[in-house]
Amino acid sequence: MAKESIERAVVLLSGGLDSATVLAMARDQGFECHTLSVDYGQRHRSELEASRRLSESLGARSHRVVSVDLRAIGGSALTDDIDVPTEMGEGIPVTYVPARNTLMLALALGHAEVQAARHLFIGVNAVDYSGYPDCRPQFIAAFEDLCSLATKAGDEGQRFEIHTPLIHLSKAEIIRQGTALGVNYADTISCYQADEQGRACGVCDSCRLRKAGFEDAGIKDPTRYV
Amino acid sequence: MAKESIERAVVLLSGGLDSATVLAMARDQGFECHTLSVDYGQRHRSELEASRRLSESLGARSHRVVSVDLRAIGGSALTDDIDVPTEMGEGIPVTYVPARNTLMLALALGHAEVQAARHLFIGVNAVDYSGYPDCRPQFIAAFEDLCSLATKAGDEGQRFEIHTPLIHLSKAEIIRQGTALGVNYADTISCYQADEQGRACGVCDSCRLRKAGFEDAGIKDPTRYV
Repeated sequence: MAKESIERAVVLLSGGLDSATVLAMARDQGFECHTLSVDYGQRHRSELEASRRLSESLGARSHRVVSVDLRAIGGSALTDDIDVPTEMGEGIPVTYVPARNTLMLALALGHAEVQAARHLFIGVNAVDYSGYPDCRPQFIAAFEDLCSLATKAGDEGQRFEIHTPLIHLSKAEIIRQGTALGVNYADTISCYQADEQGRACGVCDSCRLRKAGFEDAGIKDPTRYV
Repeated sequence: MAKESIERAVVLLSGGLDSATVLAMARDQGFECHTLSVDYGQRHRSELEASRRLSESLGARSHRVVSVDLRAIGGSALTDDIDVPTEMGEGIPVTYVPARNTLMLALALGHAEVQAARHLFIGVNAVDYSGYPDCRPQFIAAFEDLCSLATKAGDEGQRFEIHTPLIHLSKAEIIRQGTALGVNYADTISCYQADEQGRACGVCDSCRLRKAGFEDAGIKDPTRYV
């Protein structure tokens, strides 16, 4: 699926399994990829180091880290000092970061405008979305419309496109496709409470979904657990 | 215009003339106001100190500062090391911060969700908007729709309302209304390149619009110039 002329894309990269796969997919589609990692004061800072390694190994043209201190507005187990849940519950989990994807896409849009990129990639998933409202196709479509109204480029008649290649894939399908594209999942971190060396707890929601994904895909789980 | 039951609002407060007026208007409408200032690595950090003073003097219930280091994605004279223009030019000025209001509203939305506020106030203005695409009513309406899709509260059927009380006012009208509501404009900073003591340059676009506003309003300009 190589593109005829090289177009630029901004790829949101958390350092996790999903966004690493998205980067590999964007590269496979022929985009010149500029990765953006957002450091929002989360516990798992080892993800940022993983993002840097993944950007390099998966052929991104540039990698930037934007720091946003979300602790000032609070509201999530990922940034506050409350326990991360180890049981799957009903409804929206406490690990929900308020307006997170709105914020991530706003930063990606700003970066895209500066880079003259018209494509944004984000690894949202509506299958395993665990009740996060900002992972649904309707949200993505609304943000795509907003891009044209929000920017100088949009003002000049250009359209932005938000790509969500994982949105309807199961975790096992994501892992299978990423493995085929050469993603080394040992370099990715999904755990909500990874330690400083990037080792996973094995018991949080994110670890459980990831483990089950490797099992369902029939692929050996390379995750380093504590 | 006192409201029957007290509702919470998040008010975006830059420390400038416009947002200070918005805070006074929101309080006058009976809202319990929670101000949010965004420190995006801009040159005029004295604005943040002004925001704190204004939050106190204009009766906000809380004031938070969120830091976002936009310098990592560049693209603006406000955050990069290029000169601020002193002539009014055609089109979109280089002081444009990419996707700024999208980012500001995303942060305000996150804070509103945590504070159980359903009202956001932002001092955008379509009269003196100088070509910023994200100051137009269409942009605001699109973001308001996005709020319902982006949040847990929206998922539960609640609506967010974005208030833009300045959108159709001239600078002179803003100054007249704010003065009537007791805003002390000596405490506000509009200058793109204010010094560390908060004194204005008097020559940048923002200073010129502000000066002309006080003249048109027939109100003495209390700004401290260098």
